[in-house]
Amino acid sequence: MKRTSRDIRTANRYEVLRQIIAASPTSRQELAAATGLSLATVATLVGELLDLRMITEVGFEDSAGGRPRGLVAVNGSGGALIGVDIAETYVHVELFDLALNVLARADEDVRPGESLPEQVVAHVAAAVGSVVAQAGIEGARVLGVGVSVPGQVDRATGISEYAPNWDWHNVPLLDLLTEHIAYPLYLDNPLRASAVAELWFGAARGRGNAVVVNLGTGVGAGLVLGGGLHRGVSNSAGEWGHTTLVLDGRLCHCGNHGCVETYVGAPGIMLNLRELSPGSTLLHPEDQTATIDALARGVAARDPVAVKVVRDTARYLGAGIADLINLFNPEVVVLSSWVAATLGEPLVAEVREAVARHALPRPLAATEIVLSPIPTDPVCLGAATFALEGALQTVGQRSPRRTVRAKGRIAPST
Amino acid sequence: MKRTSRDIRTANRYEVLRQIIAASPTSRQELAAATGLSLATVATLVGELLDLRMITEVGFEDSAGGRPRGLVAVNGSGGALIGVDIAETYVHVELFDLALNVLARADEDVRPGESLPEQVVAHVAAAVGSVVAQAGIEGARVLGVGVSVPGQVDRATGISEYAPNWDWHNVPLLDLLTEHIAYPLYLDNPLRASAVAELWFGAARGRGNAVVVNLGTGVGAGLVLGGGLHRGVSNSAGEWGHTTLVLDGRLCHCGNHGCVETYVGAPGIMLNLRELSPGSTLLHPEDQTATIDALARGVAARDPVAVKVVRDTARYLGAGIADLINLFNPEVVVLSSWVAATLGEPLVAEVREAVARHALPRPLAATEIVLSPIPTDPVCLGAATFALEGALQTVGQRSPRRTVRAKGRIAPST
Repeated sequence: MKRTSRDIRTANRYEVLRQIIAASPTSRQELAAATGLSLATVATLVGELLDLRMITEVGFEDSAGGRPRGLVAVNGSGGALIGVDIAETYVHVELFDLALNVLARADEDVRPGESLPEQVVAHVAAAVGSVVAQAGIEGARVLGVGVSVPGQVDRATGISEYAPNWDWHNVPLLDLLTEHIAYPLYLDNPLRASAVAELWFGAARGRGNAVVVNLGTGVGAGLVLGGGLHRGVSNSAGEWGHTTLVLDGRLCHCGNHGCVETYVGAPGIMLNLRELSPGSTLLHPEDQTATIDALARGVAARDPVAVKVVRDTARYLGAGIADLINLFNPEVVVLSSWVAATLGEPLVAEVREAVARHALPRPLAATEIVLSPIPTDPVCLGAATFALEGALQTVGQRSPRRTVRAKGRIAPST
Repeated sequence: MKRTSRDIRTANRYEVLRQIIAASPTSRQELAAATGLSLATVATLVGELLDLRMITEVGFEDSAGGRPRGLVAVNGSGGALIGVDIAETYVHVELFDLALNVLARADEDVRPGESLPEQVVAHVAAAVGSVVAQAGIEGARVLGVGVSVPGQVDRATGISEYAPNWDWHNVPLLDLLTEHIAYPLYLDNPLRASAVAELWFGAARGRGNAVVVNLGTGVGAGLVLGGGLHRGVSNSAGEWGHTTLVLDGRLCHCGNHGCVETYVGAPGIMLNLRELSPGSTLLHPEDQTATIDALARGVAARDPVAVKVVRDTARYLGAGIADLINLFNPEVVVLSSWVAATLGEPLVAEVREAVARHALPRPLAATEIVLSPIPTDPVCLGAATFALEGALQTVGQRSPRRTVRAKGRIAPST
């Protein structure tokens, strides 16, 4: 579990590529200045990225009196990455170039009851096929597909061990996906996907310690600690949604009582609304998305019930986020996922007030609380980033590709 | 906040010294095998430790057919380290040799009401003077004094920012101590001291991810993440005692309601007892130590009230520790500090059952819950370890000593 010089090299490779993505074109000298790495280290890492065709030489710039400096930039045609965000109510798929610009997007609705693994996998396969077709790229250029699935995931075996909202137990998801998709696959969960998206491209960039709070149907906290993703010993860290906020409180589908998720996940917010105003027209009993949308519109229109529900929810969130601040002492807490995006700044303002009532002064003073600044789906972006990291780790390895093949799969064209 | 190659070098230096402390005498070859470092790296680090006189050459051993291998061991006369554990009810001070054997010990009671910084500092100065006199060592051999004080501490400025049980705010503790003690001083808090003690010498050794739960008057969680201590951005991570377990529950001195500490710190346990059996003879209203001792004896004698109070406390602890397991996904949770040591295995057995009812299956399966195996005061040992780390960090620096001098101080003799 100790960090080795190999880990450092990988982290430095990520850092150089992040910097090139952020500011193309750029020179090795600028990269050394921006990353704090030596020019020799930067030159080696740039060489590796050139060999991988992830970046290209794009000319020279004058340096005052010295030799002209070579410029590099992300190789727009160097490959494509796909990110898949499987949620309880939808499947979003985005296809990116190597600068992580979105080139194509496909969405599928997952209807209530459509919770069998085969049904979900069919949606994923359809959407992946769609983005490749839309982008009109050769399959061979897809470097990898990152797939985020809710719950607890074993990355090594590709098994979804536990997805509480669907009651999945030990579903061999990677095997099921491999029957339809022939690109290299990288499985993980939305907590880690959104955290890595913030780390590479969002509010955690350049931050050593950040907590990315995901508010969707389920809730959880992606952890950036010591400049990297904290996975824990079996890749299940961050299950903040299943920490106790109200001992003996609401029953959670995990079997416990009073979990944070039962108060601030979308179904929990619906229950907050129902308890406050049982007959409210804001409530769409079978439709989380419609209810949260209605609450957001209600707050904008100063509907007192909507305002009160958001305030009540923020009170729970404030206590739970203060716990994260007291435990981790982060520089930033990022609110991410669809519930946070829909309720937006009015929610964040209430959360900031509630957190200030609960957190200890010293860690509170060191923390800011912000909405995710990522304009697209952070989970798709993070999942694609896992594919990018996977492709970067193939440096020096022979065959980055999975060699399994099956009939009828979306496969690299030859 | 990123880890650098300098951090790696420091971590490797610690690892080599830890290994020499664990198994003296030993050879460079054995050290390389045990640490996974290259023989060249080990040879460099051993050379540094020899230069610091922390270790010595102690002869040779045959290697089958090859050249005899040089052996090194901890230098018993290479210096002394002092660890100070300031708690709400006592000051413990221990003096160690470089192998972290206790050479002398002094305890002072801190009586209720003795909460002024000057009073506490006087106890520390008396006890430090006592251990140096008892050990009969020259002051010049004391490499440093680690001081643990409850609450939130700014290590850089030496200020105790907030000690809730004493209502201390921004006490310049290091300055006050420096008026009495002339050795190099290293200030931190008991969460981090006990965590570093477990990391170097206890249940977290060789573990990448561990949570050290401190149960005393106050409670908190020392965090070992990625093989090192997690401090957070302003050295205040680990305030688990001030996370919410019961929303709107018991009032905490931090101003919040329902904090973990109000249910499982010593005063919280006394309240659990009072609520269950107001007139119980187990309760010593003004004496935490006597009450916890009485509970431990009661459990041993199967007194039903004592058994029930420990079970109730374990129920709160179980929910709170399950939160830590779900968040951090650690390999081990270590129960430390005096309340855990006094209540011992009967408490741990109840806690394990309660945790199993609350934690998610995947992180639960990866974790064990144990009592601290450190036979002496882990906070003293950890505080002394901070002094040892401080001495190691002076490698290549000119003057490791603080140069301030004042009258009447316990000072290196010349």
